[in-house]
Amino acid sequence: MLRLASLLLFSLVAVGGTFAARIGGTPTLPETPYDYEGVGLPAYLDTYVIRHADNTPADNPITNAGATLGRVLFYDVRLSQNGSVSCASCHRQANGFADPRPRSVGFGGEHTDRNSMALAFARYDRNEEFFWDERARTLEALALEPIQNPVEMGMTLEGLTALLSDTEFYPALFADAFGTPEVTSDRVARALSQFIRSIVPSNTRYDAARQAEGARIARPLAGLTPQENEGLQLFFGRGQCNLCHSSDLFAGTNALNNGLDSTVTDPGRSGGRFKVVSLRNIGLTAPYMHDGRFQTLEDVVEHYSTGIRLGPHLDARMFGLDGGAIRFNFSADERAALVAFLHTLTDTTLATDPRWSDPFAAQAPTPGASR
Amino acid sequence: MLRLASLLLFSLVAVGGTFAARIGGTPTLPETPYDYEGVGLPAYLDTYVIRHADNTPADNPITNAGATLGRVLFYDVRLSQNGSVSCASCHRQANGFADPRPRSVGFGGEHTDRNSMALAFARYDRNEEFFWDERARTLEALALEPIQNPVEMGMTLEGLTALLSDTEFYPALFADAFGTPEVTSDRVARALSQFIRSIVPSNTRYDAARQAEGARIARPLAGLTPQENEGLQLFFGRGQCNLCHSSDLFAGTNALNNGLDSTVTDPGRSGGRFKVVSLRNIGLTAPYMHDGRFQTLEDVVEHYSTGIRLGPHLDARMFGLDGGAIRFNFSADERAALVAFLHTLTDTTLATDPRWSDPFAAQAPTPGASR
Repeated sequence: MLRLASLLLFSLVAVGGTFAARIGGTPTLPETPYDYEGVGLPAYLDTYVIRHADNTPADNPITNAGATLGRVLFYDVRLSQNGSVSCASCHRQANGFADPRPRSVGFGGEHTDRNSMALAFARYDRNEEFFWDERARTLEALALEPIQNPVEMGMTLEGLTALLSDTEFYPALFADAFGTPEVTSDRVARALSQFIRSIVPSNTRYDAARQAEGARIARPLAGLTPQENEGLQLFFGRGQCNLCHSSDLFAGTNALNNGLDSTVTDPGRSGGRFKVVSLRNIGLTAPYMHDGRFQTLEDVVEHYSTGIRLGPHLDARMFGLDGGAIRFNFSADERAALVAFLHTLTDTTLATDPRWSDPFAAQAPTPGASR
Repeated sequence: MLRLASLLLFSLVAVGGTFAARIGGTPTLPETPYDYEGVGLPAYLDTYVIRHADNTPADNPITNAGATLGRVLFYDVRLSQNGSVSCASCHRQANGFADPRPRSVGFGGEHTDRNSMALAFARYDRNEEFFWDERARTLEALALEPIQNPVEMGMTLEGLTALLSDTEFYPALFADAFGTPEVTSDRVARALSQFIRSIVPSNTRYDAARQAEGARIARPLAGLTPQENEGLQLFFGRGQCNLCHSSDLFAGTNALNNGLDSTVTDPGRSGGRFKVVSLRNIGLTAPYMHDGRFQTLEDVVEHYSTGIRLGPHLDARMFGLDGGAIRFNFSADERAALVAFLHTLTDTTLATDPRWSDPFAAQAPTPGASR
C-alpha cells in the first residue's frame, strides 16, 4: 500500500507542475493562533548569559502568525521534490525533533550522512554554528539547506516558491505573517526559523527543582531522587560533563572530537570534531552521536567511562595527564545514576505540545508514511 | 633619515616595475644548506598524538632547499608592495616570531587589526585552522594571505611572481627547491610553509627536564626550581590551564572566548572567540591576546585569576558552578609561580638560531627599518 502510494505520488510529480499543488493536505489551524511570542524561560533560566545567547535577529522576531506559518511549512511535504517528506519526517516531535533512525531517509530513499539533530533550544545556540559540522551561521541560513539538499528534500527555491504560491492556503498565511501574500524563500526561512525558535521546552523535573530552590547548578536538588542527585554530582564533579555540556543549557560552544574513533572517517568540522549538542530532552532523541552509533544513553555513558579513543584531534579535556585518553571508569551504579540524571532533563510535554504538532495530522495521514 | 629612505623607496616603486628589482638586497646563504629536513622532536615529544598532529602535506615535505628558499622569502621586503616590509617585520625571530607591537604596521603605515601571531610549532597545529579567527585551513593557504592583504603587504600574486622572476638570485633558488626555475605563487606558499614548519624549537628547560625523567606531564620535575614546579602544579591542577593549553604542545584545538570583554567588539571566529595559541616561547612573544592588550605574563595570569568577564560566549571551562565567571584568585606567590613555570617553556636558542635568521642581515640593513 505504501509502495503504491509512493508510486502514485511520483507519477503526479512526473506529469507536471500543475498537479503538484495537489500533493500535501490542508492544515487545520486553531481559530486563535497559538501563543509563540509569549514562549518564555523559567525565571532561573532568564539569566544574563542565556538571555544574551538568544540568536533571534532584530529583523525576525517570533510572531504568532510567523511561527504558525513556520509550523505549517515544517510539516508540509510540499517542501520536498516528490512530496514524500517534510522537515518533520526527520525531526520528529515524538523524538524531541530528532530522528530515531541513525541516518535519515530523504525524499528519494537515500540516507543522509549523519543523524538528524534535535532542534529544541536552537534559539539559544550561542555561536550560531549549526549542523554537526557548524557550517550554517544563522538559523535562517540553516532552514533552507535541507530543502535544497539533493538527498534530503531535493527542491529548488524557485520551484518551492512557485508551488507554495499556487497552493490555496499559503498566500493568506504569508500575508498574516509578513503583511503581503508574496511567497519568497527568504520568508520561508524566516517563518521556519520563528517556529524552530519557539521550541524552547523547559518543563522538566530538573527545571522544576532548580526553579523551586534557586540553587546553584551543581548542588543536590530536593526535587530529585537520591540516584538522580548522585548523577548530578557526577555530571558536575568527577565526570566533568559540564566542561563541554555547559550551563543550564547543557550545550557546547565548539565542535569537539570526543574520542569516538582513533582514525577519523567523517571529519565533521575537521579532525572528527562535531557540534556539542544540548542534553535537554536527550532521553527522547536516541540514537546518539553524529552517526547515531549509540542506541542508548547507557552506551553513551559507557563511551565516556571506558571508550574514549586516543587520536590526534581528541579534545584537551579528554586527555589524561599521562597523555593517553582519559578513563572515568564509572561504576555500574555511577553509570545508572548519570543516566537517571540525564532523564530529568526531558520536557515531558514536548512530544505532545499542540503548538509544535503536525497541523496536517488532524485531517488525513500525510503521504510518505515513514512518519 | 628613515623618512627619507621611505620616500626614496616610494619614488622607486612609483616610477615603475623596472626599478622594483632593485628593492631588497641579496641574501647570504651558507655553502652547505642548513639542515631543515632533520629538524626533530625530542623523544618524549615524539608521541602518537604529536606525531599525528604534524600537518606537513605529503606533497610538500620539508627539504633543505625548499626551507632555504622559504627563509629568503620570509625575510625579503620584495614581498611587499613598496619594499618596506617582509614577513619578518611582524614575525620577528627575537620575539619568537611574533611582534612586540600590539598591532603590527603594514607597508603603508596602517595598523593591522590584531597582534601578529607567533609562528613556532605551526607544524603541529592539529586542526589547521590558522589565524586568530581560524580562517585559513592550511599553512600553505595562510602563507599567501598577508602578502595580498591590503594593509599588510599589499601585493598581487601576479606582481610578486613577476618581480621574483626578475630578481637575479630567485630562479636558481626555485630550481634548487622545486627542480625548475619557474616562480609561481604556489611554490612561494610551499617554500614559506616549509620554512615555517621547520621552526620547531624545543630546546627548553621544561623539555630537558621532561626528557631526562620521561615523567608524566603533571609530575614535579627534578630539573625545575621549587617555584617553577609550584607553577607546573597550578598549571595542571587548580588553575586548569591545561584544559585549554593542552598536551606538551600547550596549545588548543578550538577558538575560545576567554572572558576578555563582556561585550564583544572583535568577534574573531564569532562571539569573541580566538585561537588558543601554544604557550611555548610565550616569554618572548609579548604583548598578549589577539589585540596585544596585556604587556606582561603577570597581566595574563592576573586576567585568569580575577579578570575573566561574564559574556554569553564565555567558554564553558570559565564558568563557575554558580553561573558566573570563574575566579581562580591566585595568591601573589601563585601568580609568580605560574609565570616562572611559563618561562621554562622558552627555547633559549630560538631567537638566535641561524637557520631561522635573516639572510639579508649579513649584508646591509634592509629597507623599512622598523625591523
